Amino acid sequence: MSDFKEIIDSLKKFRDERDWEQFHNPKDLSLAISIEASELLELFLWKKAEDANIEKIKDELADVFSFAFLLADKYNLDIKDIVLNKINQNALKYPVAKSKGTAKKYNEL
Amino acid sequence: MSDFKEIIDSLKKFRDERDWEQFHNPKDLSLAISIEASELLELFLWKKAEDANIEKIKDELADVFSFAFLLADKYNLDIKDIVLNKINQNALKYPVAKSKGTAKKYNEL
Amino acid sequence: MSDFKEIIDSLKKFRDERDWEQFHNPKDLSLAISIEASELLELFLWKKAEDANIEKIKDELADVFSFAFLLADKYNLDIKDIVLNKINQNALKYPVAKSKGTAKKYNEL
Amino acid sequence: MSDFKEIIDSLKKFRDERDWEQFHNPKDLSLAISIEASELLELFLWKKAEDANIEKIKDELADVFSFAFLLADKYNLDIKDIVLNKINQNALKYPVAKSKGTAKKYNEL
Repeated sequence: MSDFKEIIDSLKKFRDERDWEQFHNPKDLSLAISIEASELLELFLWKKAEDANIEKIKDELADVFSFAFLLADKYNLDIKDIVLNKINQNALKYPVAKSKGTAKKYNEL
Repeated sequence: MSDFKEIIDSLKKFRDERDWEQFHNPKDLSLAISIEASELLELFLWKKAEDANIEKIKDELADVFSFAFLLADKYNLDIKDIVLNKINQNALKYPVAKSKGTAKKYNEL
Repeated sequence: MSDFKEIIDSLKKFRDERDWEQFHNPKDLSLAISIEASELLELFLWKKAEDANIEKIKDELADVFSFAFLLADKYNLDIKDIVLNKINQNALKYPVAKSKGTAKKYNEL
Repeated sequence: MSDFKEIIDSLKKFRDERDWEQFHNPKDLSLAISIEASELLELFLWKKAEDANIEKIKDELADVFSFAFLLADKYNLDIKDIVLNKINQNALKYPVAKSKGTAKKYNEL
């Protein structure tokens, strides 16, 4: 069984035992991803990167992944497919020759 | 090779060809996750969940995953471990008997 | 006429000429505030604070304010009242003696 | 004294009593706006707009305004100016004839 399937099955089991699928429409799942990403971000607020608490980072990053996995599952998306496909798109927007060593956005290169 | 390793290796190859690791400190990676989560959210703005564009959702969700994978890699985190561990924590905060069928937060149950 | 009233009247005139109030429920207005805050944040991504583009900051901060004003108006909130009230609440959570010179959250003081 | 000046003076007095200006660089202030916007958004998660708690909305919206005011002050921005200027820009991007009654983005009109 793939890593993804095992994680997503665990998340859905947890969800279904609580009868929470009724709340998990894609719009609210996207809100949840954004809210969890912001809780992760808060661990770095007013701080240098190296001063953030790694145990809390694990928890908040796990929350981001959890809702992202649930949204992917909602649309039956293959996570490896969509990420590798996006890398290919980005390779066209960010050719190595123009983007090497610069953090500029593609529309400013 | 696990799904995760294959994806993360592809993301790091893309990053390193462009010499971008210098920008990828954990604080800015967390900003990136949050910004991408917000771009995903924008696909649902002023709309019902079912009216969002699925092709764009794939792209924005892929971006969320990409930076989340890169942050996990930065700290050498095992994604399956942190997610399953968080599910166990949440099982204590949200016992089935109290949380079934309600979207209340654990501190309001 | 107060500053607030003049700005909010301009925002509502713009909105009503386009018949957009139908989209502006408080949930979607909150999404809009969060999305605009993230576009502001993106101006600082991979950068030091001083390298962000001030003209773009003006535009994105204006967007944050615009939707925040519209949400305040939706609930008939007096902005001065809610901010001064929150300062008073925060003064209790962050007494000067304990919080001076530290960025810790109140629950870690 | 304008509404804005009175609020901003109160926020700065609170900040300076705690010697917090050292943390308030524009990048972290933007993180703070985004984090507070997300806490506001969380009040609507898994809910209809009308089921959110108005007292909590006041508090979280006050936080969004507070950090937005502090960022505006950091750059000496006139809030009325930047918002009215943005309305003028948006009037060009969203002509009434094309945008009336639709929530489409300007690049999809």
